[in-house]
Amino acid sequence: MAPAVPLALLVLAALGPGLAWPACNYPPLLWCSSWEITVACQAEAWCSNLSRPAAPVELSLYYESLCPACRAFVVQQLFTTWLLLPAEVLNITLVPYGNAQETNVNGTWHFQCQHGPEECLGNMVEACLMHEAKDFGTYFPVIFCLESGVSVTKDLEACLQVYAPQVSAARVAACVEGELGRQLMHRNAQLTAALTPQHQYVPWIVVNGKHTEELQAQAQSTLLALVCELYQGEKPESCTGRAPRSVARSMR
Amino acid sequence: MAPAVPLALLVLAALGPGLAWPACNYPPLLWCSSWEITVACQAEAWCSNLSRPAAPVELSLYYESLCPACRAFVVQQLFTTWLLLPAEVLNITLVPYGNAQETNVNGTWHFQCQHGPEECLGNMVEACLMHEAKDFGTYFPVIFCLESGVSVTKDLEACLQVYAPQVSAARVAACVEGELGRQLMHRNAQLTAALTPQHQYVPWIVVNGKHTEELQAQAQSTLLALVCELYQGEKPESCTGRAPRSVARSMR
Repeated sequence: MAPAVPLALLVLAALGPGLAWPACNYPPLLWCSSWEITVACQAEAWCSNLSRPAAPVELSLYYESLCPACRAFVVQQLFTTWLLLPAEVLNITLVPYGNAQETNVNGTWHFQCQHGPEECLGNMVEACLMHEAKDFGTYFPVIFCLESGVSVTKDLEACLQVYAPQVSAARVAACVEGELGRQLMHRNAQLTAALTPQHQYVPWIVVNGKHTEELQAQAQSTLLALVCELYQGEKPESCTGRAPRSVARSMR
Repeated sequence: MAPAVPLALLVLAALGPGLAWPACNYPPLLWCSSWEITVACQAEAWCSNLSRPAAPVELSLYYESLCPACRAFVVQQLFTTWLLLPAEVLNITLVPYGNAQETNVNGTWHFQCQHGPEECLGNMVEACLMHEAKDFGTYFPVIFCLESGVSVTKDLEACLQVYAPQVSAARVAACVEGELGRQLMHRNAQLTAALTPQHQYVPWIVVNGKHTEELQAQAQSTLLALVCELYQGEKPESCTGRAPRSVARSMR
């Protein structure tokens, strides 16, 4: 009797190369070795030892670059929680704008910020940085560096040097000073205006699409515990407090 | 009947001014309002509503500036735990040296490091930074910045600009290049050699004066939980995961 050939393999063979599906460049022996390979090889049905990863907890932060409570939240809660948890557990969206206001003068957007022009500059630097760096893991340490340091608006070059030397400070500056920055900030104004319920203060924290006073209070004081509680996948060690069997070391 | 006068007040009155005791510039009404005032006014015996603050958990880290496992511990565990806990809960001592070796040639100390001369430079920069900045809250963010960034040895000026502009990069550089740096590093060599039991790898973590494999493994994976467990005082909210009644916000 011919060996059983998985259906997906036949389908892939019949469809031929050049398709938009994710490539399955692995022998069937490896199809159940990780969830990514399982999905690429469409082998979900017979890989019973793997479970679909849980969706990450989604956290959106509507904030202002100079608001003290926003800075405290970003530095003490958001950055520490992000550092402590594996990447698949928490997905963060940052929207710098907050209580700013915009007006359109002859087709150009102008902004006024709660903590003055310096805050508008800080918001714009962070919006442009996110646009230029694209990857969250690249720009979040830079935003932490700006928000945790002595000056939010004067340390972009220093923070880029330390955390993201591949991102051009000149490109970020051009964005801040040009039409691109205004468009990005207008988009943040629209995202903030679209909040339901509307925001009443900053930082305004939305978790899994919801804002409640209880979620907000827990996020601002014990975010790690909140994310651990909400995450539906297998709890990482920072949630359980249990040490694994082995850890990395450098022997003498 | 004359009102009872606390004994300490009589003693203070008898001793008169100009003594080396901490000043008690508070009326008796306030003597039990905080532990600091209680101690200054020597009112411990009748302030039953206050308990002596618990001793902080003492953590000493023997490490090397370029060892990957050391960097991961400093960045992911030590810095996050320090940020999340109130200052009185955790006391950290950093000893950069690790598996380095020293030789004395005609009265001058020379060092060889596990990860080469670049690591010796990184160790020296951090030892000199600690000496110049003195205050842990000043130098630890700079050390985090160095250890978490792209280059441990090239970002001192950038990290000082962001976190400690009052500390002179030139003074740190003079220390690194001069006899002071060698003396500081020799001291770290002595501290490392004096460990009981002797260190077998880095990072080598000592908690409340003890090193065990269990403490080490828990510190490297879930330090926050370990410190929370060991701290004998009232547990802070980052330990309990419970939100307080109110948090800081900026109203629109």
